[in-house]
Amino acid sequence: MMEMKLLVTVSIVLNLVFTIHILYNNFIIWSPTWTNRAAGEAETVASVSCSGHGRAYVDGLGVLDGHKPSCECNNCYTSTDCSILLQDCPVDANSGDPLFLEPFWMRQAERSAVLVSGWHRMSYLYQDGTYVSRELERVIRKLHSVVGNAVTDNRFIIFGSGSTQLLAAAVHALSLTNSSPTSLLTSVPCYAMYKDQAEFFDSANLKFEGEASAWKQSERNDNITQVIEIVTSPNNPDGKLKRAVLDGPNVKTVHDHAYYWPYFTPITHQVDEDLSLFSLSKTTGHAGLRFGWGLVKDKDVYDKMNTYIKLTSMGVSKDTQFHVLQLLKVIVGDGDDEIFHFGYGTLKKRWEILNKILSMSTRFSLQTIKPEYCNYFKKVKDFTPAYAWVKCEREEDTNCYEIFKEANITGRSGNVFGSEDKFVRLSLIRSQDDFDLLIDMLKKLVSQEPVGADSI
Amino acid sequence: MMEMKLLVTVSIVLNLVFTIHILYNNFIIWSPTWTNRAAGEAETVASVSCSGHGRAYVDGLGVLDGHKPSCECNNCYTSTDCSILLQDCPVDANSGDPLFLEPFWMRQAERSAVLVSGWHRMSYLYQDGTYVSRELERVIRKLHSVVGNAVTDNRFIIFGSGSTQLLAAAVHALSLTNSSPTSLLTSVPCYAMYKDQAEFFDSANLKFEGEASAWKQSERNDNITQVIEIVTSPNNPDGKLKRAVLDGPNVKTVHDHAYYWPYFTPITHQVDEDLSLFSLSKTTGHAGLRFGWGLVKDKDVYDKMNTYIKLTSMGVSKDTQFHVLQLLKVIVGDGDDEIFHFGYGTLKKRWEILNKILSMSTRFSLQTIKPEYCNYFKKVKDFTPAYAWVKCEREEDTNCYEIFKEANITGRSGNVFGSEDKFVRLSLIRSQDDFDLLIDMLKKLVSQEPVGADSI
Repeated sequence: MMEMKLLVTVSIVLNLVFTIHILYNNFIIWSPTWTNRAAGEAETVASVSCSGHGRAYVDGLGVLDGHKPSCECNNCYTSTDCSILLQDCPVDANSGDPLFLEPFWMRQAERSAVLVSGWHRMSYLYQDGTYVSRELERVIRKLHSVVGNAVTDNRFIIFGSGSTQLLAAAVHALSLTNSSPTSLLTSVPCYAMYKDQAEFFDSANLKFEGEASAWKQSERNDNITQVIEIVTSPNNPDGKLKRAVLDGPNVKTVHDHAYYWPYFTPITHQVDEDLSLFSLSKTTGHAGLRFGWGLVKDKDVYDKMNTYIKLTSMGVSKDTQFHVLQLLKVIVGDGDDEIFHFGYGTLKKRWEILNKILSMSTRFSLQTIKPEYCNYFKKVKDFTPAYAWVKCEREEDTNCYEIFKEANITGRSGNVFGSEDKFVRLSLIRSQDDFDLLIDMLKKLVSQEPVGADSI
Repeated sequence: MMEMKLLVTVSIVLNLVFTIHILYNNFIIWSPTWTNRAAGEAETVASVSCSGHGRAYVDGLGVLDGHKPSCECNNCYTSTDCSILLQDCPVDANSGDPLFLEPFWMRQAERSAVLVSGWHRMSYLYQDGTYVSRELERVIRKLHSVVGNAVTDNRFIIFGSGSTQLLAAAVHALSLTNSSPTSLLTSVPCYAMYKDQAEFFDSANLKFEGEASAWKQSERNDNITQVIEIVTSPNNPDGKLKRAVLDGPNVKTVHDHAYYWPYFTPITHQVDEDLSLFSLSKTTGHAGLRFGWGLVKDKDVYDKMNTYIKLTSMGVSKDTQFHVLQLLKVIVGDGDDEIFHFGYGTLKKRWEILNKILSMSTRFSLQTIKPEYCNYFKKVKDFTPAYAWVKCEREEDTNCYEIFKEANITGRSGNVFGSEDKFVRLSLIRSQDDFDLLIDMLKKLVSQEPVGADSI
């Protein structure tokens, strides 16, 4: 009888516990409705294992036919789960694809995701009649203030489809007023885009004229001829901090500060220029989002750049602006996980490995830049540029790109940067797989050198 | 004792039921993890009521400070929940903001949403080394095949940030080869962008020369001078189907088919041109996504356009391409709810109301276009253009835009389209609120005319 009573009591108590559990759960658990499908698909895809050597994406091949997205393997990996490493596969060290930051965003999965509804901002314009999200503009100002790399007071902020579009807009805006063509100048070695754009767009108002220092010493430096100088600092390809070569009433300057972030360089000062450009690609690693911004002091230049953006694309995708806002919110938020520490840490390790290998070589040399005090990290820091700017030291190695190509490493030739063929640029900001393979190939290449001897 | 046994039995059975319920629920209910926050935020914002006269967005003002997004009210509505209609508020009938399709996408909330992870396609390129999502390309071909409005066989498909960017790319590509400047021609009334781009970009290879038919009759029509004709069909502003005016070995043609969708016009045939452009804005209503595409027959032209896209923006945002893919999947899917029926139905109603009002007017007249057989709807259909192309018939009403402006209606002046000031364009594809207010104001304007008399 006692057992019976005990049984009843236990059973009833259990029933009560169950009832409360169910009621409580129904009450507090958020129950998704229309976001269910999209969120579920994203979760499913994220859980596809590609052996750490690839990634499945929600918009991968075959999804239209209802297939589950399959692995897209990293360079040199293959099979359905990317588990097989191809032998003698050429390593890609060419483009500046900033995949070194991907692991950070996977760690920040929850904070960095966005769900975009089918009716999200269908209009051309935001409510204030512009193409620009004011919240995004605010978070960009906050970002520069947190990092301490640029003054944003008394600056207009303009958005573009990558700094690529803004570069064209800036050069166009600054060359618009002149009757005779403006000369576009830069300092070698330099990013090829400047020349490529100027020559391809072939504006009646602009002519690419090459090296600023050569111009300065020429008779054309007459304080009258209108000139635009592009200053890339840190420089692409070599990572050095640069200053304008030219000045004078006839000189306008565009500062390309795409790489002025604590990953790549000590932050030595807040830049405070008339016109400076930044790229999301090198800020958060989202090259695929095509987003950049410019800080512009002069209202007239800003208006002209805006007209350029309007006539080329009517602003930047609202979906993109929303996602950029979310990503930058993560960066400026005060979480424990910090992207600049993460990214600098990764590049520091990569440079240590690279330096170690090339210290055993007399055939190849790297750029060197003295450490400086970084206002962001509050200590003296090494430069850890995005690219290794490698010189082939042997006289007979006239084409450095080809030397590396034969060793299964695809870099970017020095002549692309207006420099000599003795140089090749190797990208260090790509995925860990690309970097590991690069190191393997480099080791092989360096190990071919005779020990203790100079070039034979 | 019997009661006791019954109680124990019932209680144990109940326990079993609860246990099974909980186990079953845990097993079948999808339990979100990292997508939780993004999905929850989207649901919360979507549930904000703005009285049907506004919308809250996840990236609205104040979200950075942790504020709940607030209502962004439609034009002429105000207060925190957009419930108050402003008196004597100027109606916006100016831009072609395609908000008439917004209700469709709200109905398709589940199918049209996307959840984008923080690590979604961070690379510049898709796996095939291009800037173009192959699945998106496939769904676009399928869309044209379902609608029957364009041949896509043997065509390259190129993506741009809106057809705006592709227009510039096309004109640039077609003018590249010539030593003397190519003449750009079109037919009045025409979309202002063609002229604005040509004049602002000021390429050494291109000159805007106005009206194609005038050119045809001029001595410059010599079969030698290189010419690009832009054919807009259906035409913006008047909605008429158009054909090229010029032909000859020296003539290249760009077909702007942005409005060639069953909402606006009967689909009379599959277009089969060398180079035709389409815009997502007028396909799904997502102007804010900045997406357009081109169908290009010639490989060389396609390559040059690709170079243009590369040098202006390095392709289109991967987030945008993903969302466009999802939206077009909904359209080509065989659901019961069909966007072209929905959109045509909306515009048909709007045209009936507009025609009824203006039939009582002798002061204002509308364009008329005879119905034609629509291959998509499989029946004869009225034209329901995106815009009313209104003529002020009275001799003294020289500036039609101003007449409407005084009546609190902001249209777009005829001279913007290279036409006379006797015309004004009124947009009929904006939100229902904008249309309703437009009709209210039009009624007032027409009611001022003397009954039964011609102009006084």
